[in-house]
Amino acid sequence: MTALNELTATEMVAAVRSGRTTCEAITRACLDRVAARERDVQAWQYVNPDQAIADAKARDRSDRKGALIGVPFSVKDIIDTADMPTEYGSPIYAGHRPRADASCVALSRKAGGVLLGKSVTTEFANVHPARTRNPLDLTRTPGGSSSGSAAAVADRMVALSIGSQTSGSTVRPAGFCGVFGYRPTYGDLRCVGIKEAAGSFDTLGLIARSIEDIALYRDALLDIEPVPVAKGVQPPRIGFCRTHLWPLLEPSTQALFEEAAARLARAGAKVTDLTLPPEFDGIPEAHKLISGFEFSRNFAWEIEHHWEKISTTLRNGRIKDGLGCGFERYLEARDLAERCRARIGAVMEPFDVLLTACSTGEAPVGFNTTGVTTLALIWTSIYVPAISVPAFKGPAGMPVGAYIVGKRNRDRDLFAFAEWIYRKLA
Amino acid sequence: MTALNELTATEMVAAVRSGRTTCEAITRACLDRVAARERDVQAWQYVNPDQAIADAKARDRSDRKGALIGVPFSVKDIIDTADMPTEYGSPIYAGHRPRADASCVALSRKAGGVLLGKSVTTEFANVHPARTRNPLDLTRTPGGSSSGSAAAVADRMVALSIGSQTSGSTVRPAGFCGVFGYRPTYGDLRCVGIKEAAGSFDTLGLIARSIEDIALYRDALLDIEPVPVAKGVQPPRIGFCRTHLWPLLEPSTQALFEEAAARLARAGAKVTDLTLPPEFDGIPEAHKLISGFEFSRNFAWEIEHHWEKISTTLRNGRIKDGLGCGFERYLEARDLAERCRARIGAVMEPFDVLLTACSTGEAPVGFNTTGVTTLALIWTSIYVPAISVPAFKGPAGMPVGAYIVGKRNRDRDLFAFAEWIYRKLA
Repeated sequence: MTALNELTATEMVAAVRSGRTTCEAITRACLDRVAARERDVQAWQYVNPDQAIADAKARDRSDRKGALIGVPFSVKDIIDTADMPTEYGSPIYAGHRPRADASCVALSRKAGGVLLGKSVTTEFANVHPARTRNPLDLTRTPGGSSSGSAAAVADRMVALSIGSQTSGSTVRPAGFCGVFGYRPTYGDLRCVGIKEAAGSFDTLGLIARSIEDIALYRDALLDIEPVPVAKGVQPPRIGFCRTHLWPLLEPSTQALFEEAAARLARAGAKVTDLTLPPEFDGIPEAHKLISGFEFSRNFAWEIEHHWEKISTTLRNGRIKDGLGCGFERYLEARDLAERCRARIGAVMEPFDVLLTACSTGEAPVGFNTTGVTTLALIWTSIYVPAISVPAFKGPAGMPVGAYIVGKRNRDRDLFAFAEWIYRKLA
Repeated sequence: MTALNELTATEMVAAVRSGRTTCEAITRACLDRVAARERDVQAWQYVNPDQAIADAKARDRSDRKGALIGVPFSVKDIIDTADMPTEYGSPIYAGHRPRADASCVALSRKAGGVLLGKSVTTEFANVHPARTRNPLDLTRTPGGSSSGSAAAVADRMVALSIGSQTSGSTVRPAGFCGVFGYRPTYGDLRCVGIKEAAGSFDTLGLIARSIEDIALYRDALLDIEPVPVAKGVQPPRIGFCRTHLWPLLEPSTQALFEEAAARLARAGAKVTDLTLPPEFDGIPEAHKLISGFEFSRNFAWEIEHHWEKISTTLRNGRIKDGLGCGFERYLEARDLAERCRARIGAVMEPFDVLLTACSTGEAPVGFNTTGVTTLALIWTSIYVPAISVPAFKGPAGMPVGAYIVGKRNRDRDLFAFAEWIYRKLA
């Protein structure tokens, strides 16, 4: 029998509703896993076992109707919690205790989820690496910035975690840790109570061990009745989109994708190469200017009052980029991103989904980097939904994600097609 | 000689730089005005005279180069301050003290501004009226939701104030109080550290006693070198846009606008009637659905934990609207708004600016309402910049604003043309 902490969220909900187990038992199983593994993995900024057990017991006394009833979850520590510290990955906010839960936390709890604690984030969800290790190989990075979220889900400490994504901060760590990472259509899941990095790009990011779970969690966060992922879809029309960044990929990763495209075609999908219009090649640079400009204004208080507590990585990276970017250049970059957003509908029209990469390969060995952030930028910038599925194994036996990109506002279709693709590849 | 508190921000900066006065003297003059008038006007949620004087003295010891050096300002109490309470107009947040300044506060202070305190806001920047009175007639509402911001600037208590706008929350109170209210191109001025109402529409709103001051403040908040408003522009091509909401206007207000259009034409402007495409008529309803959907998710924590402390106005208004709006209807409404955003460029192409109304007339007598919120919704929803200028007097001698709407990303042009229009009408 599968240990309770290894169940997916959907399985946990079914087990609780049927009376086969209790919220308390599931929560204890997850907390036991945390206790056994945290010294190695270091996924947690804060855990409160007593409170989690008390919350789980309260769930057991409820009508058990919540969409996430009894599901242990964590949230990245850039997400406010009224009853737990929230430090944004920065010593500037040591011991900070917000007044209110972020809306995504309140909605998760309203749906019956049990918050175990706060997942480690890189500093302000940026690129300065945090201490978390990849649970599949402790010598490797889990990726970032949602480092602890991906590690905790991958290591069966929680079934669900909320991260965030400004560049590739959810989907890259999900890929490195062998789980699913979802970046929703921009704007759907609100970011109230989350430390903004660059609002033109920030979204929540959901991490789970199945697409079914991601769909369930999305509906809970929209505060609507859950709709299961459609089964038995037709084989999709897939645009295989290498992008101009393909040379960044390791050759072994390129080979995985080429082989996958062929395998999907053999399985009945219509797979066609897609070359984006040249204008899209400018998006990574535009993203750098836009996110830098916004970040360097958004963090005016921290820059003015706590400069010495900001990492040199961040000072010399996004802040320097942003303070050096004039407003006219910012507007030009924003124009480019908007033009591409306006064009992507027509570009994707012949396809159901796109297949591309969101990492150069397996998680790098060591902790000096969270990996190459560039590959997800095009998709993040044009507001389409996307999901990283753990489709491949690299040369070292570590997972490599395939990035399935959907159409804007068609997140449910994305889930169904990504499920089809995942089943053919995994 | 003009009293120091009556100077515009631009005049204050010049007076400080030239050594004709000090930051301290200006701050004391403003604080004296607050002391003399606050009992009647009730514009302030919190004032800290000692701290303001200490800040002003520190500014006097500085190099005095800041763009806003020595300018007393206030911010709406939905804007976080690390050294002052921030209560969002709600008893739920009584005594709340945020950890950090909102980015707009930090940038204002970085530029040398002196924060006197927090301006009264309606509950969560919504429509439930606050206690503030119109300083021009204490029996009338100042409008809302940026009630205290407009009243404080109009009453010469501060030169500048930051409000916010989700519907018409900056421009309507500015019009009712006879000052200038500016709603920037959506996205330019970041809302970090501001209690989000509906992120798809929320922007800062700047209130001042001259267009020059608004341009100055905008540049300070963008953290760029100030660029003066262009002088001597050609008479603009004006689209006179009554919209389908024109019947909401009082007949006397309609007459003011008709006469103004004729006067501007006589002054050399090319004034042409503009009828928006019929699709735009759906925007007010779309705004209601989008803002309601988002608001009711954004406030999940308050709704779950403090329902009894939320006004019935808000419970039965935006929250009820939002909880009753399904996700599909939300997406349809968002689609409509996006289609109109995509079309407005072509619609406005023959014009430099549009002339329209942002209130039905003068500020209503009494305090049961902050006025009709509908008129600014079209412009707020399509992300164009706009400025309310105190161009008219109504039948009771109270001010009525003319709403000048600019092109997206062309805020500087808007300032220059609005200045031209204001000088011809005022």
